[in-house]
Amino acid sequence: MEVPPPLVLKRPLYVPSKTLMGPGPSNCSQRVLDAMSNPILGHMHPECLQIMDEVREGIKYIFQTLNDATMCISGSGHSGMEAALCNLIEEGDVVLLGITGVWGHRAGDMARRYGGDVRYIEANFGRSLSLEEIKFAFDTHRPRVFFVAQGDSSTGILQSQLREIGELCRQYECFLVVDVVASLGGTAFLMDEWKVDVAYTGSQKALGGPAGLTPISFSKRALTHIKQRKTKSKVYYFDILLIGQYWGCYGTPRIYHHTISSTLLYGLREALAHFCAMGLGAVVRRHQECSTRLQLGIEELGLEMFIPREEDRLPTVNTIKIPFGVDWKKVADYAMRKYNLEISGGLGPTVEHVFRIGLMGENATLEKVDMVLSILHEAIQSIKLRSERSKI
Amino acid sequence: MEVPPPLVLKRPLYVPSKTLMGPGPSNCSQRVLDAMSNPILGHMHPECLQIMDEVREGIKYIFQTLNDATMCISGSGHSGMEAALCNLIEEGDVVLLGITGVWGHRAGDMARRYGGDVRYIEANFGRSLSLEEIKFAFDTHRPRVFFVAQGDSSTGILQSQLREIGELCRQYECFLVVDVVASLGGTAFLMDEWKVDVAYTGSQKALGGPAGLTPISFSKRALTHIKQRKTKSKVYYFDILLIGQYWGCYGTPRIYHHTISSTLLYGLREALAHFCAMGLGAVVRRHQECSTRLQLGIEELGLEMFIPREEDRLPTVNTIKIPFGVDWKKVADYAMRKYNLEISGGLGPTVEHVFRIGLMGENATLEKVDMVLSILHEAIQSIKLRSERSKI
Repeated sequence: MEVPPPLVLKRPLYVPSKTLMGPGPSNCSQRVLDAMSNPILGHMHPECLQIMDEVREGIKYIFQTLNDATMCISGSGHSGMEAALCNLIEEGDVVLLGITGVWGHRAGDMARRYGGDVRYIEANFGRSLSLEEIKFAFDTHRPRVFFVAQGDSSTGILQSQLREIGELCRQYECFLVVDVVASLGGTAFLMDEWKVDVAYTGSQKALGGPAGLTPISFSKRALTHIKQRKTKSKVYYFDILLIGQYWGCYGTPRIYHHTISSTLLYGLREALAHFCAMGLGAVVRRHQECSTRLQLGIEELGLEMFIPREEDRLPTVNTIKIPFGVDWKKVADYAMRKYNLEISGGLGPTVEHVFRIGLMGENATLEKVDMVLSILHEAIQSIKLRSERSKI
Repeated sequence: MEVPPPLVLKRPLYVPSKTLMGPGPSNCSQRVLDAMSNPILGHMHPECLQIMDEVREGIKYIFQTLNDATMCISGSGHSGMEAALCNLIEEGDVVLLGITGVWGHRAGDMARRYGGDVRYIEANFGRSLSLEEIKFAFDTHRPRVFFVAQGDSSTGILQSQLREIGELCRQYECFLVVDVVASLGGTAFLMDEWKVDVAYTGSQKALGGPAGLTPISFSKRALTHIKQRKTKSKVYYFDILLIGQYWGCYGTPRIYHHTISSTLLYGLREALAHFCAMGLGAVVRRHQECSTRLQLGIEELGLEMFIPREEDRLPTVNTIKIPFGVDWKKVADYAMRKYNLEISGGLGPTVEHVFRIGLMGENATLEKVDMVLSILHEAIQSIKLRSERSKI
């Protein structure tokens, strides 16, 4: 043997317990964690298929959809974005990306690789897109696909008026893709009523499941279009005609597509079960109450929210302006070192500008809100004091 | 709410404990299962990155490689196949697929979607490809990429002479992609010495890890080629220039690419640690001893191996001819119902022709071999008896 076994693997596995209040992942409940140490099941065993059926029903509920083509992609939230675009886009299709942070750009990068003719529509700084802006862009670009994130976790912007956008997309014969990775559970989302064609969410956010399986759903209209594509979708792994057969979506016999992780299925199943037991309405209300309390607390601390208008604020990922002269990294390090609490910095356009505080799933409780406010305050004061002392 | 919460999610999660001796997944050890109920870590937390570093070192060892571009794809084994082809292939490249079962065809399906000019070279029934056949195909097709599975789990064929194939690929300026999903740990594999350009394996087979993270490695030669591509690789999610940055492969700062599942990382890390502690040579020997004993036992039972030549037999997935007049499904059902033991039927060209018995990881022990032999015998006798009685 030329390559020796690595010494690092002789040490025991070390996993600290943290409170994850950044933009995700959030903490899993003990119920979810326990579920994931259950024995492995084969990917075609009836018990595994049964759990997939249960997960599918759970996803339909949280998306409020009756779509047959409701399943999971075996990958992170990014794989949901890939699957949405990969299945819809054919060479040369005009794809319009709504930009309220980084995710529209990410989707644009993907769409271009699939041969899409990519156009952007950018919201005013710190605001969501208005219906007028979108309508104008539709008239200019005549897109085949329109992408927008309901919640952009990089800026903390909430895109509202999805119902009206859905209506608009029908008028323009355009498919509406909505990224609800960071928003689902924190704000209302009615896939069918709002005429959304594709939606996908992150399991590791408000849902409180493990990362690695991405719930996704395609409308009947989108599915019909995909079945009539001139070319196969570019990626076998993301081909929802095949994945949907494995998930038993189309009433045809189950066909092996890939080896799903039974471990992640257990975790997601339990997270969904808990979510469903609490009820979608109650979960959304709780996330909103938590965010409202956080926003009040932020003001009381003399800090300022990054997003000016209340109606544009995403309840799940809250962005707060970094006070002048404060090093955000030191604040985050303080919270982590002293309390094992994750407070995050910005991403993309908000780097160095904001703290991001996630209130999702297990961490969307009033107690956690008060805790994070108190630690944020303590950390900022401590960092200020230290930097003043260092000047003397 | 129009869509009510599903009643099925009010029932408790049910996961039976089975002995998985089909073509994979195999059972995880209790150490691996326990690891997966550890608390969630953020995908950019230093402790998570540390575990990724450890996993990367473990992969280098099991592949016997010093390649910088060694990482995991966040997806099943199929996603490793996608990543290998997606990064190497540019529009119009001739891609030659070695066929010893279903996996070459699967890779061909993927390659065609990426714009590859797909050609096949098919082995004689029940045999691996000979060097002469491959050389002839190289002369005919002048491929840019040659794909072969070291072990094809659908037929139980082992492709040997990879060292010579590696040499040949250098002569023809062709990239060698080897699928070691089903073979790694059951047979020698020396990535660097054999001049393999891309290899990927399944974590849920001989490695004894959970499905959902796929170890993959690219040679320096392949990496240089990928960096010089005229177009970006077609899929952001599989772009190893980006994934490698996240995994810290290139000595550049870590950049967020996607949210990795910390849960699966824990499991894979522990599986690799166990594998490394036993030592690659010992693991391979054990798998081979188990297969030899199984093959002897099969003969003693009056049954016949599907692959005629011993040297073509994959030790990890063993294919056995179904005796005339026996319904394989009834045999498999008997083993599962009475002993919670998975024995599998065929796949692709072997459907209705073979039993597939996996001897991988936790299940590659002499005790398990004896157990599966005894249950297989009992099941076949019982099914024969039943069908004779029904004739009377």
